Amino acid sequence: MSVEELIARERVEVEAALDRVMPAPQRWPARLHEAMRYAVMAGGKRVRPILARLSYAAAGGNPAEITEAVCGLELIHTYSLVHDDLPSMDDDVLRRGRPTVHVAFDEATAILVGDALLTEGLLVLATRPGGPEWAARRAEAVAVVAAAISSRGMVGGQMADLEATGQIDRSTEPTADDLERIHAAKTGRLIRASVELGAVLAGVEDVTLQSRYGERLGLAFQVADDVLDAVGSVDEIGKSPGKDAEAGKLTFVTLHGIDAARRKLNELEEELVEVASSIEGDDGDLAAMAKFVTRRKS
Amino acid sequence: MSVEELIARERVEVEAALDRVMPAPQRWPARLHEAMRYAVMAGGKRVRPILARLSYAAAGGNPAEITEAVCGLELIHTYSLVHDDLPSMDDDVLRRGRPTVHVAFDEATAILVGDALLTEGLLVLATRPGGPEWAARRAEAVAVVAAAISSRGMVGGQMADLEATGQIDRSTEPTADDLERIHAAKTGRLIRASVELGAVLAGVEDVTLQSRYGERLGLAFQVADDVLDAVGSVDEIGKSPGKDAEAGKLTFVTLHGIDAARRKLNELEEELVEVASSIEGDDGDLAAMAKFVTRRKS
Repeated sequence: MSVEELIARERVEVEAALDRVMPAPQRWPARLHEAMRYAVMAGGKRVRPILARLSYAAAGGNPAEITEAVCGLELIHTYSLVHDDLPSMDDDVLRRGRPTVHVAFDEATAILVGDALLTEGLLVLATRPGGPEWAARRAEAVAVVAAAISSRGMVGGQMADLEATGQIDRSTEPTADDLERIHAAKTGRLIRASVELGAVLAGVEDVTLQSRYGERLGLAFQVADDVLDAVGSVDEIGKSPGKDAEAGKLTFVTLHGIDAARRKLNELEEELVEVASSIEGDDGDLAAMAKFVTRRKS
Repeated sequence: MSVEELIARERVEVEAALDRVMPAPQRWPARLHEAMRYAVMAGGKRVRPILARLSYAAAGGNPAEITEAVCGLELIHTYSLVHDDLPSMDDDVLRRGRPTVHVAFDEATAILVGDALLTEGLLVLATRPGGPEWAARRAEAVAVVAAAISSRGMVGGQMADLEATGQIDRSTEPTADDLERIHAAKTGRLIRASVELGAVLAGVEDVTLQSRYGERLGLAFQVADDVLDAVGSVDEIGKSPGKDAEAGKLTFVTLHGIDAARRKLNELEEELVEVASSIEGDDGDLAAMAKFVTRRKS
């Protein structure tokens, strides 16, 4: 099976579970639930829940057991996109080829959609899989993910990113180290947590290798994103390209150039394939995911 | 001990614990952590963590064991205030006598402060009290609180409130029933969850009475708030009074009048004192809290 087939098969599972865990669109208040679905059901690669499933399978588990739980990662990822797109943040009007939530609905609704998706994501992790035998792992699952998206993780990265791009006051110029720290927090932490989550739900006690793999994959993901922003088209990436350079945004590409970014992706791919092969029980899917991320075209 | 002394003593415990669970203000990114503390350390009655402690004590527990955990309620309550105050929501510039977060900092920072406080609140509940013997109760704690603040609870209430006040499009006029539903969701659910949380952390299996008490107390809290908005001064309530009527906001007072609101508070107080007396082990503190809420002047 090619990695594209693997991901296509995984996506079907994840999207069916997303539909089950999301509140029905007609539930009160309908406007909010419709907007939540608009945001979540817009496509997307579903990389985070897929990573958690593959990591769970590598640890010997049957991924069907945790599909609903790990949908929490996708709800949380979507919340971060909806809030990042807001006018006072990155001010994006297009996401995955469609108007962003605050454009399709309004700003207040978009803020509440983000709040509700964040809450729902952690609620799903706190309640699934059901049954008392899973309770301890559920608490650990919430802890791993909430720490990753906290003020020291994803949200902190977005704050530092806004400061670094001068969108709000700052006193000093950002450095290349700042950039790396920002990426690691803003994008890397949730991807790392996704890989860790699969292992934690499988009862793995030492998740060092999963953390390493997740951390490098997160970096690869961000560098690939920066490359795509620099060279992609609207059709390929589903949003306005070249926005980073235009906005004076600090990215791997604007800082080190496109060639260095591509070399970095090659190095990361090699390292990731090696770490993946050390993770017990991995049947090559994690290595395939690494190649998919470093070579992705959209 | 008077209820004022009880609350003063409780507040000292809660504020010391808040200081311990909040990330240090100098931590990266400092702007975010300073703003989080600005929002949380602005005073406030700390009613939600206090209710959880009293409910835990009524169930026979030593409240010191859960003080850090129930601080999660206060972080979450603060997140809801910071987001509700945003320009695209209620557009408030004053809160507890000080500039709101988006005024003191900026809008993007205020959105991220809310996101970070929500995350931190659930993270605190997922990790405290520490130790494997608490793991199942921690998962349950996150579940109870996250459900209360979800799109069917607090966030849904805020969405419906914005629709009802015409701040965003709506197709039908709201009714008195709508008002009750909005209040129950927006304010009532988290207060009810606070009382439930104390019982859940104490291992109580049937929390029906705690739910009833919390639900009526939440209603009393909201009606008292509406009365204060109508008749209070800036000094007393720390925010601009009369804003509800001005904004055409649907409240118990604008809908039924001030006399009906005061009668409702008397009825609720009687009912609450009775329910409190049925909660096993209550030494009168929950009844005292009920009186405090229905009679509060700020």
